[in-house]
Amino acid sequence: MFKILRVNMSDLSVNVEDIPEHYQGLGGRGLTSAIVAREVPPTCSAIGPNNKLVFAPGLLGATACANSGRISVGGKSPLTGTIKESNSGGQAGQYLARLGIAAIVVEGLPEEGKLYKLFVGKDKYELSPADDLKGLGNYDTVDRLKGQFGEKVGYVSIGQAGEWKMAGASVAFTDREIRPTRHAGRGGMGAVMGSKGLKAIIIDPEGGELAPIKDKEAFKEASKRFTNALKEHPVTSQGLTNYGTDILINIINEAGGLPTRNFSSGRFEGAEKVAGETLNQITQERKGVVSHGCMSGCIIRCSGIYLDQQGNYLTKWPEYETVWAWGPNCGIDDLDAIARIDRACDDYGLDTIEIGNSIAVAMEAGIKEFGDAAGAEELLAEIGKGTPLGRILGSGAAIVGKTFGVRRVPVVKSQALPAYDPRAIKGIGVTYATSTMGADHTAGYAVATNIMKVGGDVDPLKTEGQVELSRSLQIATAVIDTLGLCLFVAFPVMDMPDAFNAIVDMVNAKYGLSMTADDVTALGQKILKMERDFNTRAGFNQADDRLPEFFMTEKLPPHNEVFDIKEEELDSLFNF
Amino acid sequence: MFKILRVNMSDLSVNVEDIPEHYQGLGGRGLTSAIVAREVPPTCSAIGPNNKLVFAPGLLGATACANSGRISVGGKSPLTGTIKESNSGGQAGQYLARLGIAAIVVEGLPEEGKLYKLFVGKDKYELSPADDLKGLGNYDTVDRLKGQFGEKVGYVSIGQAGEWKMAGASVAFTDREIRPTRHAGRGGMGAVMGSKGLKAIIIDPEGGELAPIKDKEAFKEASKRFTNALKEHPVTSQGLTNYGTDILINIINEAGGLPTRNFSSGRFEGAEKVAGETLNQITQERKGVVSHGCMSGCIIRCSGIYLDQQGNYLTKWPEYETVWAWGPNCGIDDLDAIARIDRACDDYGLDTIEIGNSIAVAMEAGIKEFGDAAGAEELLAEIGKGTPLGRILGSGAAIVGKTFGVRRVPVVKSQALPAYDPRAIKGIGVTYATSTMGADHTAGYAVATNIMKVGGDVDPLKTEGQVELSRSLQIATAVIDTLGLCLFVAFPVMDMPDAFNAIVDMVNAKYGLSMTADDVTALGQKILKMERDFNTRAGFNQADDRLPEFFMTEKLPPHNEVFDIKEEELDSLFNF
Repeated sequence: MFKILRVNMSDLSVNVEDIPEHYQGLGGRGLTSAIVAREVPPTCSAIGPNNKLVFAPGLLGATACANSGRISVGGKSPLTGTIKESNSGGQAGQYLARLGIAAIVVEGLPEEGKLYKLFVGKDKYELSPADDLKGLGNYDTVDRLKGQFGEKVGYVSIGQAGEWKMAGASVAFTDREIRPTRHAGRGGMGAVMGSKGLKAIIIDPEGGELAPIKDKEAFKEASKRFTNALKEHPVTSQGLTNYGTDILINIINEAGGLPTRNFSSGRFEGAEKVAGETLNQITQERKGVVSHGCMSGCIIRCSGIYLDQQGNYLTKWPEYETVWAWGPNCGIDDLDAIARIDRACDDYGLDTIEIGNSIAVAMEAGIKEFGDAAGAEELLAEIGKGTPLGRILGSGAAIVGKTFGVRRVPVVKSQALPAYDPRAIKGIGVTYATSTMGADHTAGYAVATNIMKVGGDVDPLKTEGQVELSRSLQIATAVIDTLGLCLFVAFPVMDMPDAFNAIVDMVNAKYGLSMTADDVTALGQKILKMERDFNTRAGFNQADDRLPEFFMTEKLPPHNEVFDIKEEELDSLFNF
Repeated sequence: MFKILRVNMSDLSVNVEDIPEHYQGLGGRGLTSAIVAREVPPTCSAIGPNNKLVFAPGLLGATACANSGRISVGGKSPLTGTIKESNSGGQAGQYLARLGIAAIVVEGLPEEGKLYKLFVGKDKYELSPADDLKGLGNYDTVDRLKGQFGEKVGYVSIGQAGEWKMAGASVAFTDREIRPTRHAGRGGMGAVMGSKGLKAIIIDPEGGELAPIKDKEAFKEASKRFTNALKEHPVTSQGLTNYGTDILINIINEAGGLPTRNFSSGRFEGAEKVAGETLNQITQERKGVVSHGCMSGCIIRCSGIYLDQQGNYLTKWPEYETVWAWGPNCGIDDLDAIARIDRACDDYGLDTIEIGNSIAVAMEAGIKEFGDAAGAEELLAEIGKGTPLGRILGSGAAIVGKTFGVRRVPVVKSQALPAYDPRAIKGIGVTYATSTMGADHTAGYAVATNIMKVGGDVDPLKTEGQVELSRSLQIATAVIDTLGLCLFVAFPVMDMPDAFNAIVDMVNAKYGLSMTADDVTALGQKILKMERDFNTRAGFNQADDRLPEFFMTEKLPPHNEVFDIKEEELDSLFNF
């Protein structure tokens, strides 16, 4: 029943095809990576005709399973040059799965300067001109499209950054309120979409249906166990729900691993002012929304609605990594400024992590002072205007470092580091160094075990056990991303054996399989190896699996630690 | 007798040491590469404390051998991330060798923002503040230093581009007229010098002497044979001497391999206007100088002095690659504009090849029109001012492509291609793809055999024989660069067996050795393997030994050829 939609931007054709055998049994990241690894020449230009942009809901999409609506976006990354899967919440994943679409594969290139939109409905696929949307941000784009397609659809779009093929450009997905607040942020997938002249996708779920289930009873029972686990675990039922991901500000600051002023300290004196507790308080005072899901079927509800001082909608709750990137890492402690920045990034279509790092490196270069919130907003506006300075900043932290001759540039494979300093939380450093995606905390979130003691306790400051921890998490994450599950299900899964079993049981019940835990591990390993093989063919080797040297030479206060996992240990990560 | 000078910019010490055994028998590129490969961590920041900048005259430096005064500049390249040797004419090579200095190794980093100059005389080495030179171009820098050190010394300096650590920054060397017209251009060695806060080196040869020769008679005899060969071969005695390297404009245009308007055609309609014949004619009309050597001991004299329309000195004869980069490749046919640009690049301290490509890619992005000479000069001025646009352009063509989302970006390992289209001259394409230096014509100048039929005849449009040709030239070039010989000696060497024998005889006579032709080949192979090993440890693999994909997909007029040497063949280049 599930199909692959081939969208050819060169001849503007849209074709439906059965899933060939070599892609069967895969969804989400597993499917996007398999298609990219097989069909994209690894040394091609990421913004050229031979790259492909792949959208895929997960294997548990369009089911009653909680938090199963994530969507994966894959391609060769213009930022890193590696294979890339970036995933997002919002409505698109569930809607695509309900329409029986396993993947949309966007190929080729249209005539230079032309823009198109793709409509995807029940057995109806249409590519049409969208030149009228040229130069619009995501908010305006969605508003304009709403006039034609209404409020009962999901929108996928790019802002100005994607049109300009900036390596920091994201792909935006609308949430339940039809706002473009959910982003596949990392790795410049928005630039790939822009290179293909695809401004927007409209996904109309009408006529769609839940995915067929082979053993409905077994699925229902397993789904219930899974839901209960999410409702029981304190992280997914209390911490995230009340304070959002921003709850981490105080936790990571306390742990001495909150990168401050371009990774020059692990503690920020203004942390309290931008912490989740403050976010909750401001939201309550202004009568915003606390505990809000980013997609249908979410029972964690780690988001919220942030109102400005006048009580008007400004943006969704900025994520922890966003607050960090533009807050502590730029020396800024103004949550309203950060929320405005979050809104602007959503509108231009920018990865908040990458661009926050761009700004911090620019501050290190002396372009603005650390702590200058108005200055940071000015720099962001440069990106929106597409000025030369904006082009530099929108291209990511590595390019900012190169153009301004900065030494402390926190990137791996040209992708900027997220909100956890690898000198104070060494497990995540292993993930940054070795992930097939460049520096990416979601690829193997060792912070959970290093700091929150979920799934065990590995001392964040010691070198022992970090490679094993990162390895097992990277393998497990590849599966979670393949199933279309929100990564936060990992908290109960790591602590409660039955949460994991419930997931396996759901997959087996849905597809009539009898997968074991070992089979699940083997699937994760297969996906990672496929991705790593692409990267090898693209020109990467073990020397690319390294953190920038300053992490090995500059001690991070307050622990005064360096990153000291041995290179041989890093190189053993893929020994499986 | 020969020593290594260690200049530590962290503690501002200068120390002299004997040449350790592992560096003995090496000079020029062989020595810079050996030091970098052994002492520089391959994954370090090229502008960080762990990179080193090495200057080394060749093994035949300070002898009576003709054209033996080249100087090699080595380090890890901020442009490519590979090992780098960039060499130059001028007086420094001979002067250093006369002072008995085999290499200057600049290490560490000084306090941020401080500038220094290094004086090197007979047994006198001094590092002193040079903050008064901050922000000066190379011409002003040299003028200022002349006031203190006079006209009987050689100056090595960086302009604004080097101070700003731009990846397109060169290191300038003064010529016989004490003008900073000779540059180690490629790979951003000027940025490394800038990162080390070293604005200038003053080399005073007074008290220095010719290098000791074990067998003076044999040396003299061999040197004479070598000189005769240079005087006999038509390329080194007529073509280059009368028309400079710019003689190639008409030759390469005729061959259909003159990259025009950012590598979109192989023929330029305005070629005649910028050709060597025109350069000669303008020079004669204005009473400039035809046939001028860039360094003492040169008997080829391929340079000249270019006067402006008022008859005042403007610059030395722009090289063919400079004329090409700013002429045909930007669609410009104005030799006066190109000469002004050459002067400005020498002054700012910029690689004319890299930055000409930056401008062409910027033109492709629509920032200026192809053919707009005044526009090109304006863009160059942006670099001189250090504006954000200037930062982008000064960082090289790859960065211009990334920031402006351009697809046709002619770089290998992030270094821009020189003046020969690899689709029409396939041998040079093999060199671009596989050289340890990134795209570099001087690393294995297959154009000689493909087009000029020197050293044989390998059809430029066929795939057969190109890998073998490039391989043998890359090996031979590594030796020429190690001896400190001007690359143009390769013309007689390739055509006249005795020219090669004369070189071997000189080396043997000088050092009391009995090297054979096989030993020479083995030396070249050893250097290449050492360089390639560094690159592997820095993160490169075979997939980096590729031309950008557009060379494989876009046919080049007029021959309508693509670059079609198979990847397996490219990968066989280092099979020795």
